[in-house]
Amino acid sequence: MITLEDIRKAHEEVLKVAVKTPFSYAPKLSETCGYEVYLKKENLQNTGSFKIRGAFNKIASLEESERRRGVVAASAGNHAQGVALAAKYFGIPATIVMPETTPLTKVDGVKSYGADVVLSGTNYDEAYAYAVEYAKERGRVFVHPFADDEVIAGQGTIALEILQQCEAPDAILVPVGGGGLISGIAVAVKALSPKTRVIGVAAAGAPAMKLSFDAKKPIDTVEVRTIADGIAVRDTSATTLAYLLKYVDEMILVDDEEIANAILYLLEKQKLVVEGAGAVGVAALIHDKLALPKGSKVVSLLSGGNIDVTMLSVIIEKGLVKSYRKMKLVVTLVDKPGSLMLLTQILKEAQANIVQIGYDRTSLDLKFGDAYVSIALETKGEAHQERIKELLREHGFRFEEQH
Amino acid sequence: MITLEDIRKAHEEVLKVAVKTPFSYAPKLSETCGYEVYLKKENLQNTGSFKIRGAFNKIASLEESERRRGVVAASAGNHAQGVALAAKYFGIPATIVMPETTPLTKVDGVKSYGADVVLSGTNYDEAYAYAVEYAKERGRVFVHPFADDEVIAGQGTIALEILQQCEAPDAILVPVGGGGLISGIAVAVKALSPKTRVIGVAAAGAPAMKLSFDAKKPIDTVEVRTIADGIAVRDTSATTLAYLLKYVDEMILVDDEEIANAILYLLEKQKLVVEGAGAVGVAALIHDKLALPKGSKVVSLLSGGNIDVTMLSVIIEKGLVKSYRKMKLVVTLVDKPGSLMLLTQILKEAQANIVQIGYDRTSLDLKFGDAYVSIALETKGEAHQERIKELLREHGFRFEEQH
Repeated sequence: MITLEDIRKAHEEVLKVAVKTPFSYAPKLSETCGYEVYLKKENLQNTGSFKIRGAFNKIASLEESERRRGVVAASAGNHAQGVALAAKYFGIPATIVMPETTPLTKVDGVKSYGADVVLSGTNYDEAYAYAVEYAKERGRVFVHPFADDEVIAGQGTIALEILQQCEAPDAILVPVGGGGLISGIAVAVKALSPKTRVIGVAAAGAPAMKLSFDAKKPIDTVEVRTIADGIAVRDTSATTLAYLLKYVDEMILVDDEEIANAILYLLEKQKLVVEGAGAVGVAALIHDKLALPKGSKVVSLLSGGNIDVTMLSVIIEKGLVKSYRKMKLVVTLVDKPGSLMLLTQILKEAQANIVQIGYDRTSLDLKFGDAYVSIALETKGEAHQERIKELLREHGFRFEEQH
Repeated sequence: MITLEDIRKAHEEVLKVAVKTPFSYAPKLSETCGYEVYLKKENLQNTGSFKIRGAFNKIASLEESERRRGVVAASAGNHAQGVALAAKYFGIPATIVMPETTPLTKVDGVKSYGADVVLSGTNYDEAYAYAVEYAKERGRVFVHPFADDEVIAGQGTIALEILQQCEAPDAILVPVGGGGLISGIAVAVKALSPKTRVIGVAAAGAPAMKLSFDAKKPIDTVEVRTIADGIAVRDTSATTLAYLLKYVDEMILVDDEEIANAILYLLEKQKLVVEGAGAVGVAALIHDKLALPKGSKVVSLLSGGNIDVTMLSVIIEKGLVKSYRKMKLVVTLVDKPGSLMLLTQILKEAQANIVQIGYDRTSLDLKFGDAYVSIALETKGEAHQERIKELLREHGFRFEEQH
């Protein structure tokens, strides 16, 4: 197991390519949840996530002769970019194995750091197996994304920065997938500020490490499904579980709905793009999952910001509906002259902006002449939506709300 | 006119409620545009924009007796939040006049800082006129958003931070609407680092200050229209124009398309939410609007992050189409059994994910039995889109692309 000294040594190395990321108090979030909340913004790290720290420390720790042969990793995400950028720094070859279904933008992202990309397998497991084989055949070092002491020491360097940026927090919330990040952080925190609780937050759709932590032995799961793809890990690593059982105080879960809310919250209130894995701590805070004393000083680690903008757009759209800023209605328009005009007039008077409209008069359940008009409206809150619905009812419109 | 000394004094005041915002090198952006680019992140400022600096300095500069009577401002945006938070700090009443059409979220945002909101007028000018009158009647101080030396001194404090965070940049790009921000920054920069070029960037849809700068006299415009609502100023202030003519080196324009691209760029590559006004500098950089020597050290000021998420969602959607990650096609389906199945089969083989589908067989220009199928596809880049279109043509489908 690594010690604080390993993490201190790693920090010197890591800062050659990584930056000390910003850390700041979050006033609105603090008000919302009753704690004194601080955010550590690793989403603003080079490559958009903390993974560069561990990858760089691993590669820096290799013997020169070993390193020169090059490195191999399996990942379609943050680890891939971390390994690629670290290899670029040392001017050594890096091969990243990605599943065949990987979006082109992710492939190009890694190639832009100068790494070779090999597409293999239909999922992560197959890509992983191929990468291990590939490294072995060529005598190259395989860089594991988390079950590796040098990687863990690299991730732990975030804790050194947090404890410089903020004195003795009561708790630190850390996203947990494979457990590499929280292992390194917990070692540093328990050495420097033993009273600080280290709380792991995992996705309910990928609970292997939470189950293992509770059972005190490795438990694998059958499948994972979460929007937090950065922590969607199916099997438990004995290496990291040992760290968790020794140093971590508590493990909690948040579900996709809660994670999506946190992503939108961070986007709107903190002006930050944070990926699902990075938002789990804030999800726990805004959904009141912690039982800490009121006013506790809590640090939430935003581990990365590499979220697909398509996903972001879906989260925004759903979030607008949930927060009463958008409403979707299917109105039955009766066969009467001026019916559509009356509808648009009511909506205008109610100051509801129409952003989408559809017209269907061929559904079997409609009377001849009648039509369904599906409309999406921009609205100003719950009371506004109620007023619009009231107005429609007053004018005799039948409608259904869509969620 | 204010001097460096005024700005230094303002900085001490301002840091009571504002934070020294992060500043960092932007490697990818530098590569893209051939300069050494740094970003000053005022979007991460309290209230989500720099406006708190000027508003706070103004209110701090008032005589105690004057201040106690309270302040008034007209704004539906960043200035409103700045004034409200500053007033909250001093425990004095603040009344913000907003146009009647202001979205509820903005009203609530300002109320959450404890300010009173008065809705008046159908546009900013009417709200402004009412606010001035309201302040006069009640003997309260009206806080102008830019044409005020104390406000200008407050905004100038950003330059002190930039010049601490980065030695002698070759140029600083500053968003320009009313000109208060660039006035303060230019005074500080020309006093401390006279060789640094101060370049103003305005929206092509709100060019009053650019026109005035070129003509060396105030020119008003008839109307403004831009997605950068934070700098959508119609008339030129003689106060700020005097600063611009004395201290600013150059004024350039960027259009809405360019601003939208910059917003998406910052979202994806920098993990930052930046509003239109805040993104104009990056718009100038990625669209090659500057004629600086290669490798110049350029600072772009991201002035704020208060963009409506609905707008963000529209920008993402359009950006996906422009960058070949989404494609919209209207395919003519001929009256032949299995026609739709063949279409979906081709799309599956091409690994194009269908995200939306519509079906219309009642258009007058269709033969009986034929139908239009409108589909939106997730694609992996330009080459992928070409392959999909090629495949459709090979199988005899007629289609049109929608933009």
